[in-house]
This record gives sequence, C-alpha cells and structure tokens, in this order.
Amino acid sequence: MKKFAVVLSGSGVFDGAEIHEATLTLLAIHQQGGEYEIFAPDIPHHHVINHLTGEEMPEQRNVLVESARIARGKITDLKDFNPDQFDAIIFPGGFGVAKNLSTVAFDGPDARVNHDVELAVKGMLERGKPIGALCISPAMIARIIGDVKVTIGQDAGTIEAITKMGGTHVETTHGEVVQDEQHKVFTTPCYMLDANISQIADGAGNVVREIIKVL
Amino acid sequence: MKKFAVVLSGSGVFDGAEIHEATLTLLAIHQQGGEYEIFAPDIPHHHVINHLTGEEMPEQRNVLVESARIARGKITDLKDFNPDQFDAIIFPGGFGVAKNLSTVAFDGPDARVNHDVELAVKGMLERGKPIGALCISPAMIARIIGDVKVTIGQDAGTIEAITKMGGTHVETTHGEVVQDEQHKVFTTPCYMLDANISQIADGAGNVVREIIKVL
Repeated sequence: MKKFAVVLSGSGVFDGAEIHEATLTLLAIHQQGGEYEIFAPDIPHHHVINHLTGEEMPEQRNVLVESARIARGKITDLKDFNPDQFDAIIFPGGFGVAKNLSTVAFDGPDARVNHDVELAVKGMLERGKPIGALCISPAMIARIIGDVKVTIGQDAGTIEAITKMGGTHVETTHGEVVQDEQHKVFTTPCYMLDANISQIADGAGNVVREIIKVL
Repeated sequence: MKKFAVVLSGSGVFDGAEIHEATLTLLAIHQQGGEYEIFAPDIPHHHVINHLTGEEMPEQRNVLVESARIARGKITDLKDFNPDQFDAIIFPGGFGVAKNLSTVAFDGPDARVNHDVELAVKGMLERGKPIGALCISPAMIARIIGDVKVTIGQDAGTIEAITKMGGTHVETTHGEVVQDEQHKVFTTPCYMLDANISQIADGAGNVVREIIKVL
C-alpha cells in the first residue's frame, strides 16, 4: 500500500488549508488504495481571517492545532516527518500555504519558506519521490526548487512570480495535471481557478492518480 | 436542478461540524446534479476544543463564522432560511450538532434544540420535503420529531436516548441509509461508526441519492 504524507497549513481557505482540497486529497488517496498520514508545522498562523466577512480577527491560532480539525486529531508535527517512511508527499492549497508555510502571499518571488516544509520537500527530491501540489502550493514548490515546471492555472500575477523564481509555468484548466518529469512534481490548479467542488475532486484525484502511476 | 440546504454547526469534529462529512455532502449534492446553499446559526460555540490534544481552549468562537471556513465564505444565517426555496435539507454530523445546534451531548433525551434549527426542520416537515441527517444529527432530528425512524449506527447510549425521545432506532453499518417514509427523513451513521473517509463519501452519497429518488 502506497503511503502519502499530506501537509496542511491550517483549516480554512483565507488563512489556512483549503478545506475541500484537503479533504478531497485524503479521499482520493484512500479511494485509490493508498494510505495517508497528515502533517502540519507547529507554528503560529500569520493571521486569522473571519471567513464570513473577510476581515482580520484579533486572535492568534496555531497551524498544527487548526490543521488537526481537518485531520480529526490524527496529525503529526511536520518536524517529525521522515521522507524514508513515505512514497509521496502532497500539499493541498489555501492561503495558509502562502501565509503560514511560506510568505508567497506577501513577498511573491522573494518569498521565504518554512524550514520544515523545505526540509520535507528536499528530502523527497533527494530520494526521487513524487511531490504533489494543488492550487497555490506549486508557487511554494517553485520557490524551493527554482527550475521546475508547474501549473497554478491562469493567474497572471502568480505566473509572473513563478517565472521570477526560475520556474516554468504551464497554463491549465480544471482537473489538468502538469508533471515535471525530472523532479517528479505534479501540480493542478483547483481553486486557483473559479472552480466547483466536483472539479476539486477531479483535480485532487488526478494528481493522486498520476503520482501512483510513477510509484 | 434540485436545491439542497446544508446546515453546519461550526468547523471541526469535536466542537463543530465534522469537516469530511460536511465537504463530502456538498460533493455528493454537486456530483449528483443538485445545487446547495450552506447555512449555520449565528450563535456562540458551546466551547472550543483543541483538536490536537482534546482539551478545551480558553477561546470563544461563533458557529456561523467558523462554518464559513467550510463554506469558503458563501454561507447564510440560518434565521434567513426559507423552506419554500429548497427541495431538501441536510445536516452533516460532528459534535457541533450535539453541542451547538442542540444540547444532545449534555442532556441526551432531554436535549434542547436551537430555535432556528427547529423552525427549519419543522418547515420542511410541514411541506413534506425530505430531511437528511448524518452521524449524530439523527438524534437531534428525533428530539424535534419524536416518533421517527432513524439510525446513528450502533452506539448503545445514543440509541437509548433516541428511544427515550420517542424515536425508533435501526442498527446499521457503513453507508447504509434508513428512511422514515412518513416524515421523509434519511439517516446514515458516518463517523458514529469507526469509519474511513471513503465510507463517509459512501454514506453522504447514499443519503443524497435516496433523497433525490423521492424528489
């Protein structure tokens, strides 16, 4: 049974992991015969957004603790991730990837990436193991790898940032997967496009399917 | 196109809506050709649970605001729900149903139910429109209706409470749906059993399928 690590960045599209993308990634792995373990870094949220109004709230939340909501409590601190124990790693999207796991939302091509996230990605790269990234996550992956082929759909500003990071962007629509064969990086746009929930299930399912093909 | 109201109770299994059940209910509705609008009451959480440790946190959160995380901001206050505008209503599970939408978790057969939830359910009942309920939600529905046939799976304590409320409980396993033909109430156990995420997709999918059959 192929074992996937799924890395979350909180719980909620505007300040954390996108909940549909996270849930449907877990579903895709399980439905396609794999198993998963969920990780998140034990770090503060950049900020907390009221998802009803879009306004910032005067609160502090923790990425690992909030991610545990999606994981139903079964989650591991990302600092304990061991690439030897997994066949692949996947990053669902949500602004948490660009605000908590990295600073892509604020610094674009000059973004910093969380140390444990970078270690996890590089650990898989060194072992030639596949990396999946949904939605905005491919921008973070490009910031780590540099010269990598990815897709985030069609958003001009993000495409420009990826190009400045040294990456190559391929425009795609719903459910399409771009594969970087050298680095075994698999990306799909999900909610970086104006998508419905069935299209998210397609995107997550297709990334998992393409990864399983190369395992 | 059949229109479903989906009522959430927060975001996170231990103090709100169960995230997988909520997401996979939305997916099932969309994949089966329906459309949905998401609702939650504008009330405080009973409490906030750290989903990593299981301990209570010294915080206050709002059910509508937290539910908006699952809804990606597209959510309506339950007090504005109009049963004339919907073909069916569904309640995913999670402790939020038993702690925020009702007091089933604390008061069992003597539970109180949130006024707007009760109005919504009774509005659908009066119009002969179907009601779906997953996981622990059937106990809340039994508290509203009394003499109704439901399932929450196999949990002895909850079955006893439902019986004391005047309901009839049918034991089921993963993905099975119990239909009360008189009241058009459709229930399935989901995470009230020790389930995996594919079984949750099956349960939510089957409830939506059975509801669509009678529409």
